[in-house]
Amino acid sequence: MLLFAAAIQTSGQDSKETEISKGKVKLKFALDEQGRAGYSLYFDGKTVIKHSLLGINLAGDSAFNRQLSILATTKTTFDEQWKPVWGEVSNIRNNYEQLTVRLKQQHSPGRLINIVFRVFNDGAGFRYEFPKQAGLKYFTVSEELTEFRLTGDHTAFWIPADYDSNEYKYTTGPLSKVDAFEVSKIATDIAVRVVPDQQGVQTPLMLKSAEGLYINIHEAALTGYPAMQLHVDKNDFSLSARLVPDALGNKAYLYAPFNTPWRTILVSDKAADLLNSKTILNLNEPSVIKETSWIKPMKFAGVWWEYQTGKSTWSFADRADTTDQQGGLIPNGRHGASTANVKKYIDFAAASGLQGVLVEGWNYGWEDWFGNWKENVFDFTKPYPDFNVREIADYAAGKGVKMIMHNETSGSATDYERQLDTAYKFMNTYGYPSVKTGYVGKIVPRGEHHDGQWMISHYERVLQKAAAHQVTVDAHEAVRPTGLHRTYPNFIASEAGRGNEYNAFSDGNPPEHETILPFTRLMGGPMDYTPGIFRIKGYSTVAGRQVHTTMAKQLALYVTLYSPLQMAADLPENYAAHPDAFQFIKDVAVDWDDTKVIAAEPGDYITIARKAKGRHVWFVGAITDEHKRTATVALNFLDKGRKYVLDLYRDADDADWQSNPEAYVIGHYLVDVATVLKIKLAAGGGSAMTIREALQQDLTTLKKYK
Amino acid sequence: MLLFAAAIQTSGQDSKETEISKGKVKLKFALDEQGRAGYSLYFDGKTVIKHSLLGINLAGDSAFNRQLSILATTKTTFDEQWKPVWGEVSNIRNNYEQLTVRLKQQHSPGRLINIVFRVFNDGAGFRYEFPKQAGLKYFTVSEELTEFRLTGDHTAFWIPADYDSNEYKYTTGPLSKVDAFEVSKIATDIAVRVVPDQQGVQTPLMLKSAEGLYINIHEAALTGYPAMQLHVDKNDFSLSARLVPDALGNKAYLYAPFNTPWRTILVSDKAADLLNSKTILNLNEPSVIKETSWIKPMKFAGVWWEYQTGKSTWSFADRADTTDQQGGLIPNGRHGASTANVKKYIDFAAASGLQGVLVEGWNYGWEDWFGNWKENVFDFTKPYPDFNVREIADYAAGKGVKMIMHNETSGSATDYERQLDTAYKFMNTYGYPSVKTGYVGKIVPRGEHHDGQWMISHYERVLQKAAAHQVTVDAHEAVRPTGLHRTYPNFIASEAGRGNEYNAFSDGNPPEHETILPFTRLMGGPMDYTPGIFRIKGYSTVAGRQVHTTMAKQLALYVTLYSPLQMAADLPENYAAHPDAFQFIKDVAVDWDDTKVIAAEPGDYITIARKAKGRHVWFVGAITDEHKRTATVALNFLDKGRKYVLDLYRDADDADWQSNPEAYVIGHYLVDVATVLKIKLAAGGGSAMTIREALQQDLTTLKKYK
Repeated sequence: MLLFAAAIQTSGQDSKETEISKGKVKLKFALDEQGRAGYSLYFDGKTVIKHSLLGINLAGDSAFNRQLSILATTKTTFDEQWKPVWGEVSNIRNNYEQLTVRLKQQHSPGRLINIVFRVFNDGAGFRYEFPKQAGLKYFTVSEELTEFRLTGDHTAFWIPADYDSNEYKYTTGPLSKVDAFEVSKIATDIAVRVVPDQQGVQTPLMLKSAEGLYINIHEAALTGYPAMQLHVDKNDFSLSARLVPDALGNKAYLYAPFNTPWRTILVSDKAADLLNSKTILNLNEPSVIKETSWIKPMKFAGVWWEYQTGKSTWSFADRADTTDQQGGLIPNGRHGASTANVKKYIDFAAASGLQGVLVEGWNYGWEDWFGNWKENVFDFTKPYPDFNVREIADYAAGKGVKMIMHNETSGSATDYERQLDTAYKFMNTYGYPSVKTGYVGKIVPRGEHHDGQWMISHYERVLQKAAAHQVTVDAHEAVRPTGLHRTYPNFIASEAGRGNEYNAFSDGNPPEHETILPFTRLMGGPMDYTPGIFRIKGYSTVAGRQVHTTMAKQLALYVTLYSPLQMAADLPENYAAHPDAFQFIKDVAVDWDDTKVIAAEPGDYITIARKAKGRHVWFVGAITDEHKRTATVALNFLDKGRKYVLDLYRDADDADWQSNPEAYVIGHYLVDVATVLKIKLAAGGGSAMTIREALQQDLTTLKKYK
Repeated sequence: MLLFAAAIQTSGQDSKETEISKGKVKLKFALDEQGRAGYSLYFDGKTVIKHSLLGINLAGDSAFNRQLSILATTKTTFDEQWKPVWGEVSNIRNNYEQLTVRLKQQHSPGRLINIVFRVFNDGAGFRYEFPKQAGLKYFTVSEELTEFRLTGDHTAFWIPADYDSNEYKYTTGPLSKVDAFEVSKIATDIAVRVVPDQQGVQTPLMLKSAEGLYINIHEAALTGYPAMQLHVDKNDFSLSARLVPDALGNKAYLYAPFNTPWRTILVSDKAADLLNSKTILNLNEPSVIKETSWIKPMKFAGVWWEYQTGKSTWSFADRADTTDQQGGLIPNGRHGASTANVKKYIDFAAASGLQGVLVEGWNYGWEDWFGNWKENVFDFTKPYPDFNVREIADYAAGKGVKMIMHNETSGSATDYERQLDTAYKFMNTYGYPSVKTGYVGKIVPRGEHHDGQWMISHYERVLQKAAAHQVTVDAHEAVRPTGLHRTYPNFIASEAGRGNEYNAFSDGNPPEHETILPFTRLMGGPMDYTPGIFRIKGYSTVAGRQVHTTMAKQLALYVTLYSPLQMAADLPENYAAHPDAFQFIKDVAVDWDDTKVIAAEPGDYITIARKAKGRHVWFVGAITDEHKRTATVALNFLDKGRKYVLDLYRDADDADWQSNPEAYVIGHYLVDVATVLKIKLAAGGGSAMTIREALQQDLTTLKKYK
């Protein structure tokens, strides 16, 4: 629904400076004396980005960023509302001022490049556009020269720029202290990591300035182009783009007309504003999938945590190269994806109202799948002998449960592409509506990286092929999202960060981790974090290993870490031990009409309330870092005059993530729009709430919250 | 049928030297004082290969070729006969002496490597085998150290070692004069060429020693490993293996157990013996395709030469990026693959007894297909609007003609692999039994080469997928063959060399070219050379351009250049102008019971007689280089007591490839086993013969040859 658009003003060649603004955000464009494009950005009169250079150099034209002249500048206004297929809100406004600067190389061959800026209330985006032209058809990008010149030594929440992984813990500290090598060196829990630049960081990069500005730098609509990483100049706090290269060191092979992804800068003096931003999503193209009724958010259980904790194995056998007399694998007796075990999970999901069941380790290949840079690893249509795919499909269908497919590629994208047609047809045949993909390993084609152009296009090809088969995709170990789920709403979730699984197989995630993720990883899209671990300690044979959380915090994550695909990640028996707490996971929604960020500070705390789509039910999550604190939640978002029941899941008074993580208290109270909750959060703790319309009997049986 | 095998002798660790021999060929193995393996080869008492080192080094083990000790040596004898699905003969004997040397690294981790030698009557082959072992599972080959130390500055028939092309003219000259850069520099008619080594040459490398030995060095059974090229040491005439690298400079990613391809050395004092050799074929594995009745040799016409000569275009439109109002391409009016034009070719094939019709330029993508290193180029299931695939399929079926599919990839192997399933299903749907593949362009995955390990495996994947769809493959611009058609008899032909097409779009092939090809390119397998051009001059708008041949020689090539897939390459109207000469193309067989190499000297002349499979009909081809000469053909291969008719197609007495190429004479004579033909070959000329059983009337109407 387009409300207002295209008040076009075009200026001629003379003005070498121009600006656009919206609300408190102002962006200035200027061409300098060397004919180089640049911009600066301001928020409420404060400089966010000092004059910073722009430009792209090509193989064979290493000066394309210089001696440019302005052919024209055009300003337009745009305002529309659109409805996402699923999301944190059911209605999104896309409202910006746009400045298009058409540039031309002054010397021969007079190549053309446009830079398009969009300014929103909460930030700006810009991209390079190569229009169709005689002097530029096929070309290779050797360098992108985009700069973000900051005003000071801001506090950064950063992970190393890595061509292949984003599964790092965040480091919080001044830009001047960034040392990607130091972090990478000790990150031995990450299987494949390639960190080329000691001063390189990844986006979304979250920053906080001394004067209290929250700044987030990322990109939107990453397709057909490598991911952007940032090099930090520690002297002048300038960030400059670094594109992930291919095997030959080239960055991108392009064909005009082509538009790069948007470079995004979000800014506010309130951290919560950044979590509410829809700018990255708005900078993506509308859905290319027209009929979307088959795309369904869901909660799911899975044969998964038992692998992570060593209870069972992905593999059917212990050795790939030892076989019985008939050439069959020799079962190890500990295989998780057996028909019988899978049925238990289906029973559990059906009994719990979880829509889906994921099964990993169901197909041939797991005996010898990792670390050998193999071309051919898995067969995506060949179940292990103890996984009866037909029997399981029928059993799940009989219980109203959807099976979720698992396609681990081990990084061999070429092999996956060869099998896509047959793999997705197989899913259709057995009624799997969703696939979890995985890329654990060095990429094949060898020399390519997870975040390079070839793989970016691979992920998009997977989404396209999946859409053609009405399959939704949850990509693991892929590039971090950039809002592409607007264009491909079947891109229902992604990992692309350090998930809860690290608590199982490594020293885990610190308590602050989930307070940073929404400001970093989740800026680009939902994360399949796999919350809901109830057995916080004792699941591992490694001494001292535990999840760095309280149990109540695990519940809160279903609200604070947005995803339309949420796992109940723990074992059914661990949920059975706490049916009262598990009730929250059964209740919590995964699709929303509205979202209120009540309180948020990266690295410290987050409190979010969300209204379930199409229902008068709100869910609230509040989490803290390693410090205990009190979350204040004014329920002013509730309907006036309506009575509600609050189901409150909170840390027990003596709870503590280290010493007493599983201590929780559940209470039920009457609340209304005037209620202000004061919830104690333990160190590493949290709180979850269901707020539903009160029934008549509730009014008599329940007490008012105070 | 295994006649005799496995007379096993095993010796212990002590003997550091051992030898095997068969007929005139002797091979010695020796381990030197540094524990390095080596071998030498002798023919009839003459040294062919002086003591030459062997070995393979690995990434992380750059001394794997040294400090080896012998665990055991084993000698076996093998003798079998087998019947190829198609071939130059209908029965092949595979008879060799084998020496297996089991070697172990003396230092930790004590890795194992075997070297297996096989000695045949006409040469030897050897390969490296990595047995299954604890100390070596996945590994990367950094260098293969195989040497071939020659005894002198032999005359070589060579083309430059090139990672991506083998479409060079041959240079004849001493090894000491090899200059690959010089040749490559002027080979501007080859689109993609990457020549890394000034002293590098390709195999099959044909050599002739001063003492009259003919030596051919190549490889057999190239799968899962890069192609081998050779570096020439001009000082001591030693050749050393150079493997084609991947994008990262690695040579091969392997998994034990693995056997490398065989390195082959054929040797004789008669050049003809090399053309008769079946050693390369014998070193390949037996067919993996069990039911082969669908694999059929054939002659075919095609919408092809009219593209090469500029009469029509592959593309439907002139521009890819200009469309009409409905978004359709704008036809250029010169598109060759129109339904109407294709029907003309089908009519022509049906009338001429040609089994197939190839159509290039039938599918979307040709407007912009070459030279831009694109990931996505062609759609292999999307015909141009003027190519009615159903109508054409039905029309061809009605005439008993098979359509031959064309899949040009432009080098984007990843894109082809994504489409293989659908492309071959499409062929099955429309009844295409055969596909011509093409790889004109730089390879995608970018950084890979036509002859590197990834592409070698790609070509094999294509053969496997094609076999699963009962499709035969004629690969163009792929790696040169190594006898793999024994294992995959659906690999019915290949280009992999400089074909007749170069006469259309470049300065062409010199008259000697086809006298060298059987000693080089064809050692590994049949070539789709596309002979049969009747209009020798005047087909091109380029002044002076012509085929470097007489018309009679074009006929002879159907016999001298073996292929089970032979094209009648010229335009139907050019054949219509010479129905008497065209009769030979209609008659000539493409599958054989027997082959007699009557005379052969690389670079000078070749005369071959072949008996059509299952019939008492012989065909003879005789060709010469730029010198005129007389071919003497004793018909002693005919059945005694039987009367035959000879249809003789020869150069007219005043024929000459330059001044009078289309002058030919046809005569019909009675011949028998005692007949000795003396046929004048013009400069650049040749002669073709059909020798069939005489009918009663022939005995009265025809005269005896004299």
